Amino acid sequence: MDRAWLDERQQRTWRAWLAVAELLPRTLDAQLQRDAGLSHAAYVVLAMLSEAPDRSRRMSDLARVANQSQSRLSHTVARLEDRGWVRRERATEDRRGNFAVLTDAGWDVVARVAPGHATAVREAMFAALTDEQTDALGDALSVVLERLDPDHTLRVPEPG
Amino acid sequence: MDRAWLDERQQRTWRAWLAVAELLPRTLDAQLQRDAGLSHAAYVVLAMLSEAPDRSRRMSDLARVANQSQSRLSHTVARLEDRGWVRRERATEDRRGNFAVLTDAGWDVVARVAPGHATAVREAMFAALTDEQTDALGDALSVVLERLDPDHTLRVPEPG
Repeated sequence: MDRAWLDERQQRTWRAWLAVAELLPRTLDAQLQRDAGLSHAAYVVLAMLSEAPDRSRRMSDLARVANQSQSRLSHTVARLEDRGWVRRERATEDRRGNFAVLTDAGWDVVARVAPGHATAVREAMFAALTDEQTDALGDALSVVLERLDPDHTLRVPEPG
Repeated sequence: MDRAWLDERQQRTWRAWLAVAELLPRTLDAQLQRDAGLSHAAYVVLAMLSEAPDRSRRMSDLARVANQSQSRLSHTVARLEDRGWVRRERATEDRRGNFAVLTDAGWDVVARVAPGHATAVREAMFAALTDEQTDALGDALSVVLERLDPDHTLRVPEPG
């Protein structure tokens, strides 16, 4: 089998990417499971709702900001609904589409879990990087993202 | 909710990471599903076997080089076995542990799929990056990996 399918520089970066992309979520999932019985995907849904006006988002918007397909999001939200942390609201005369709303219990979960999660992210991703490396990583990933999602239809929006 | 849980620089890099980590596998999965009905995880297992001496690896080694947990790997290998692309061999007097072996049909799948996959990886990850950005990305990810896996127990080994 021809091993030169990526050049040496790409191969090195690709292998590091594959390893980190597998290991980092596993680390964060372990922390979130331990602290709240949450997967990382479920946590991101709660966090994105906690940042929204009225703690509420249209399901299609939530899929975009949580980087999840509609079908995966439906599954995630259904499980969060079972736990009483999210409720779904059907469209009304005033607004189109189906909405997911963070409940008070869901808000409390985010408030309780967020600090530990921030620490886990800092420890796993940023603690060993200099500011310059953090910027270089962000720059390179932003370039890749621009190519993967040129219309910004799937992009996590800037806060605010 | 306090939004300052990561500083601004970390926040930017983290959001780019989350988006790329979600979108890139989705892009590559789509290509592999289309070309061979394979998930990325299953492709990596086949590729790692194709590079091994005798196209064979101990299951525990395969889990490490494919960055998969033992239970996830067992599931992946079972499905590849159903398709006739991998077979499992029990330990013998000469060697301990259970082995996964790439069959001739599995080898043909890798040979057929690898060029298109390489193109997809280059297009999705590297086409928009300069050599310097590719190196910077690899450097930063290697630092993160060193922290996540200091003993190299889970690390994908260098080729060769």
